[in-house]
Amino acid sequence: MQKNKIEVCFTPATFEYFKNNEAIVVIVDILRATSAIVTAFMNGVKQLIPVATLEEAKAYKEKGFLVAAERDGIVRDFADFGNSPYNFTKERVYGKEIVYSTTNGTNCITLAKDSHEVLIGAYLNHRALVNHVVEQNRDVIIFCAGWKNKFNLEDSLFAGSFSETLINSGKFETNCDSAFASVDLWNVAKPNLINYIDKVAQRHRLAKNGLDDVIEYCHTFDLTQIIPVYKSGCIVKLSDY
Amino acid sequence: MQKNKIEVCFTPATFEYFKNNEAIVVIVDILRATSAIVTAFMNGVKQLIPVATLEEAKAYKEKGFLVAAERDGIVRDFADFGNSPYNFTKERVYGKEIVYSTTNGTNCITLAKDSHEVLIGAYLNHRALVNHVVEQNRDVIIFCAGWKNKFNLEDSLFAGSFSETLINSGKFETNCDSAFASVDLWNVAKPNLINYIDKVAQRHRLAKNGLDDVIEYCHTFDLTQIIPVYKSGCIVKLSDY
Repeated sequence: MQKNKIEVCFTPATFEYFKNNEAIVVIVDILRATSAIVTAFMNGVKQLIPVATLEEAKAYKEKGFLVAAERDGIVRDFADFGNSPYNFTKERVYGKEIVYSTTNGTNCITLAKDSHEVLIGAYLNHRALVNHVVEQNRDVIIFCAGWKNKFNLEDSLFAGSFSETLINSGKFETNCDSAFASVDLWNVAKPNLINYIDKVAQRHRLAKNGLDDVIEYCHTFDLTQIIPVYKSGCIVKLSDY
Repeated sequence: MQKNKIEVCFTPATFEYFKNNEAIVVIVDILRATSAIVTAFMNGVKQLIPVATLEEAKAYKEKGFLVAAERDGIVRDFADFGNSPYNFTKERVYGKEIVYSTTNGTNCITLAKDSHEVLIGAYLNHRALVNHVVEQNRDVIIFCAGWKNKFNLEDSLFAGSFSETLINSGKFETNCDSAFASVDLWNVAKPNLINYIDKVAQRHRLAKNGLDDVIEYCHTFDLTQIIPVYKSGCIVKLSDY
């Protein structure tokens, strides 16, 4: 049996070299955009409308939409939410539509939008994603949001964990150096994940702004079966689609 | 004492995000361009003239220059040399000027040319490079040529080995996630480096074309004290400059 291929793209700046419109793309921005998006769906958000620029986000706000907008981890003053998963409580998001703009995450969605399927990945929905991707029987690209077009560790570790699980399913293989590297890094980090995360640059950026209370939460496996998917300009629950 | 910073850039596609004209840039393309360049200088080449396109290389050939030119590992039929270190024997290169164009390596030189100093790195001159960079007392960027703008393992392992040695000197530190990742990957690979290299994509590309006879040679530490440096359009020996 022909196995499906795994590729790992470390930053938006290199996504064009991986482009494969037949593949499923899993976007990850563990600290914190995709962890926050999955959390919003866990708490009943109806849909998210990703926008690239703060100007677009502001224009939606002026039309009366709820808006999540941050740059460099800091919530914008016109916005209702920042980028912390803890912002997206049931009280604030249940049944709502929210416009969403983040430093790195939204750009990835725009770049990947012509792919077969664009899924939002986090540790929070890791197993559900694996099960879905295995069922689909297609090539997969794990697309790390990185940090301002640079490699970051926390997204790459997720890519390693995800790739290893897919390979262990027996239905996927890889010849992609960034997938090999991710799996090896994951195996270095896994025995003491939160300690390892202590050295990543983004943890220090978040700590500087008092925003690092979410590290353990964002590295918690399998709190939900929900898979957010990008469809026709919006992020919705895959099961609703 | 303020320590100097190490950054690791995994591919030419992201170099612009690292750009720091005050830094020393060490370019690495272990399999095989930078290993071949260092070997050419070990065998007495006078200077190399890097050119970006095959058309430029061909034009030089027509003017009577010796030309090394390959794409995807394959020597071009108009050229005198390909990209194997074994091409650059003393008999063929001693005292000569050679025009040089490769898939990934030449592009890196063009991108980095405004940096404080652009050095050509390989395992073959690892210790000499470390000594020089420590003496210079400046920030350093290790610039991996990668493969067609994607991450590759063999250059990243060199970056890890180089970063670890600089950090152990006590004069360098890093807050760069790709440097951390490189060091961790290097420590995974180091106990059995050649076996580890067996899984990298480029090894298989070379094997497919019968060009993988250079793997062990390209991973040999410290055969020379020579450091090739890019100056005013040419690569020359640092000690000659």
